[in-house]
Amino acid sequence: MAERIEVVESQTGDRVEGQTSELQRRSSGGLHRVVIVGGGFGGLQCTIDLKGAPVHITLIDRRNHHLFQPLLYQVATTSLATSEIAWPIRSLLRTRPDVETLLATVTGVDTAGRRVLLDGGDAVPYDTLVLATGARHAYFGHDEWEPFAPGLKTLEDATTVRRRLLLAFERAERATDLDERQALLSFVIIGGGPTGVELAGTIAELAHENLRGDFRHIDTRDSRVVLVEAGPRILPAFTEDLSAYAKGALEKLGVTVELGRPVTDCNADGVMFGGQWLRARTILWAAGVQASPAAQWLDAPADRAGRVLVEPDLTVPGHPEIFVVGDTAMVNGPDGTPVPGIAPAAKQQGGFVARTIGARLKGEPSAGAFRYAHAGSLATIGKRAAVVDFGWLKLTGWTAWWLWGLAHIYFLIGVRNRLAVALSWLWIYLRGQRSARLITQGDAGGEALAKD
Amino acid sequence: MAERIEVVESQTGDRVEGQTSELQRRSSGGLHRVVIVGGGFGGLQCTIDLKGAPVHITLIDRRNHHLFQPLLYQVATTSLATSEIAWPIRSLLRTRPDVETLLATVTGVDTAGRRVLLDGGDAVPYDTLVLATGARHAYFGHDEWEPFAPGLKTLEDATTVRRRLLLAFERAERATDLDERQALLSFVIIGGGPTGVELAGTIAELAHENLRGDFRHIDTRDSRVVLVEAGPRILPAFTEDLSAYAKGALEKLGVTVELGRPVTDCNADGVMFGGQWLRARTILWAAGVQASPAAQWLDAPADRAGRVLVEPDLTVPGHPEIFVVGDTAMVNGPDGTPVPGIAPAAKQQGGFVARTIGARLKGEPSAGAFRYAHAGSLATIGKRAAVVDFGWLKLTGWTAWWLWGLAHIYFLIGVRNRLAVALSWLWIYLRGQRSARLITQGDAGGEALAKD
Repeated sequence: MAERIEVVESQTGDRVEGQTSELQRRSSGGLHRVVIVGGGFGGLQCTIDLKGAPVHITLIDRRNHHLFQPLLYQVATTSLATSEIAWPIRSLLRTRPDVETLLATVTGVDTAGRRVLLDGGDAVPYDTLVLATGARHAYFGHDEWEPFAPGLKTLEDATTVRRRLLLAFERAERATDLDERQALLSFVIIGGGPTGVELAGTIAELAHENLRGDFRHIDTRDSRVVLVEAGPRILPAFTEDLSAYAKGALEKLGVTVELGRPVTDCNADGVMFGGQWLRARTILWAAGVQASPAAQWLDAPADRAGRVLVEPDLTVPGHPEIFVVGDTAMVNGPDGTPVPGIAPAAKQQGGFVARTIGARLKGEPSAGAFRYAHAGSLATIGKRAAVVDFGWLKLTGWTAWWLWGLAHIYFLIGVRNRLAVALSWLWIYLRGQRSARLITQGDAGGEALAKD
Repeated sequence: MAERIEVVESQTGDRVEGQTSELQRRSSGGLHRVVIVGGGFGGLQCTIDLKGAPVHITLIDRRNHHLFQPLLYQVATTSLATSEIAWPIRSLLRTRPDVETLLATVTGVDTAGRRVLLDGGDAVPYDTLVLATGARHAYFGHDEWEPFAPGLKTLEDATTVRRRLLLAFERAERATDLDERQALLSFVIIGGGPTGVELAGTIAELAHENLRGDFRHIDTRDSRVVLVEAGPRILPAFTEDLSAYAKGALEKLGVTVELGRPVTDCNADGVMFGGQWLRARTILWAAGVQASPAAQWLDAPADRAGRVLVEPDLTVPGHPEIFVVGDTAMVNGPDGTPVPGIAPAAKQQGGFVARTIGARLKGEPSAGAFRYAHAGSLATIGKRAAVVDFGWLKLTGWTAWWLWGLAHIYFLIGVRNRLAVALSWLWIYLRGQRSARLITQGDAGGEALAKD
């Protein structure tokens, strides 16, 4: 049965200024209104954990799906289909009559009037606001590099990267100039964090194993895969020995790892790093992120990456009714270093905020400060090795890969997605066949094959 | 091991005029060169059946994938993922060293010089040419309707239709004007052939069953799904009693079937049919097709739909070295009516051409005229009914649906895709969950939610 919510007067009519839309007049049934912006790991966890609390929740996202970002690189590298790692938000919450899902883009927050402003002039009033709006990849003041070095944050990013990867091989097959062919078979990944390492490892396997034999004029094993990192080692969040292991594992897959080489230029022809120019037609960006504009909406203090400098309880200074969680928030962990921008951290923060809201409504003492518990760091190198750092336990190689794989399947939402991802992985192992080798959005005659 | 083909002089250097590119100089090892344009059902079958023949094959397609078009409507209606019904062509042919796959767009045919002209100025010489370039949906001289009534021929068409369908419900959830809400919940499908029937049935199920309970301000069961057909009955390729059964089955799903009502206008606001105006924000086109421009490339006689009027042996009049098959060819079946534009017909024609080429090369007598054997007609109405017409056997209902489902899974390429599609269907049955409910390529703030 579809839920029907009667249209009655807003409880906050006195506070609402300017245009009063029908959306605003929709009722919360007199309940405390929690508005959550963002259906990623943080926002979704907060929504889930508020179950049973005496609140009316409005969850706003500009996309209709929750995305399992840790596996996004597998969509980009033809291992998984888009629908295997994304799930419609309103479908996840269909059994929750206390939750209203809105597909809308937030344009700002009226903190005085306690309203979230939407595209089209609508506004949604709140008693408590949770901003979980995430981050985008960023180019450190070089936004002009974006067309040449796409990043990886959305499903469209992933299909764009996939199209570029596959088209590079197709164009190399048709290329008659040997220099051009080598440029087409050169793949540069900028940034040695987990995403960069995972992209480089999978692209190397794609070129050296999976695509072998599919072409007649090129040998895909002639491909050059280069991972460029400005710092002294890859995977800086891991211990030094795990970083060294990962570097060795990548090199065994045929990846060239360039350390201590910041990128200084990037265009359609290639990339300049550490004073060296490399001709390459495919450049991928995995080097940095910029938080969503939540700090601007709130006029709140932020760090250089745009993350809101929140209080220890994740509220915005001067606004105890506004929480910021996940990649948009900057808060220190118990060891004095910033809480990392990873899914488990966002989920812990979302859960903490739900508990805080629940305690406040019951008049109980506040949960105090958010305490981040680091469960561990994981990264894969291709389909046969991984590094796992639980602090008390460090693993590499095959065992680490299996642990990584099981953990990711476990954290996927829904039995069906788990089966589908397991089936896709099984096929890569058994048959070497990657299931999502589709070039879409632009065919051979379109922009995609155009010579830049 | 990747195949390496040496670059030697073309066997047809004397016939080649103008620019001689490196592509042309690539060798066929002195073998008879067959160029096949189009990796759909006809072109792929011809390639497969030429296995072992003393020929060198170049298969050209502007997309990198073979598409299982009979299930495309299921991608459009959120049942299947794109990668479940598409497979990279060069991967399908990786074990065939005699086949070279080219991702390229054909711009014309130089019949005098026996060369296929490609984008970018390249040309591929042939001794025998097979054109299997398919058809696009067509608007009977009303191309201005296309933006308002998208058709369904490519994967991008399917994701476009899916986005429009899902966004209509999202926009209805946010709509405050009741007339606008009703227009958003009105879905018109133009054309009562199998595609139109299958779209209408699935959209009705989506609205009346699967999406129920996901929204808070609309009842998706208020949706209106209208199937408009200009002729006197739907599914005209079936017998009259099966047409009548299909109409009743659609009506049971809540579809309004409008017969004998040609569409005379179509815009962002709705559609005019049989003198009646219906406000609707989602209009889908399943009413007609236009063949690819093969006839223009060849300067060959064509029918109104642009199909080449081929000889009984599927060659082009005056060009025994050029074959046309599938949706681009017009030839009569043994009963004197045109061979239908369906996958089995294209596959039979592709196989016939492969046999003819083989016979010619052996100096055997030609296989004579192509004889079409109609295996049967199938169409589904939602997920519980179908109509099957084998001539000697007619089935409806549940049994027909199962036969339809098994036949389609059988004809999918690859064990993995069969498992994946079976899993997706199983989940729709068991859980009512459709796996591909993603809105991609345009978010809430983009064109997609813009008010036209």
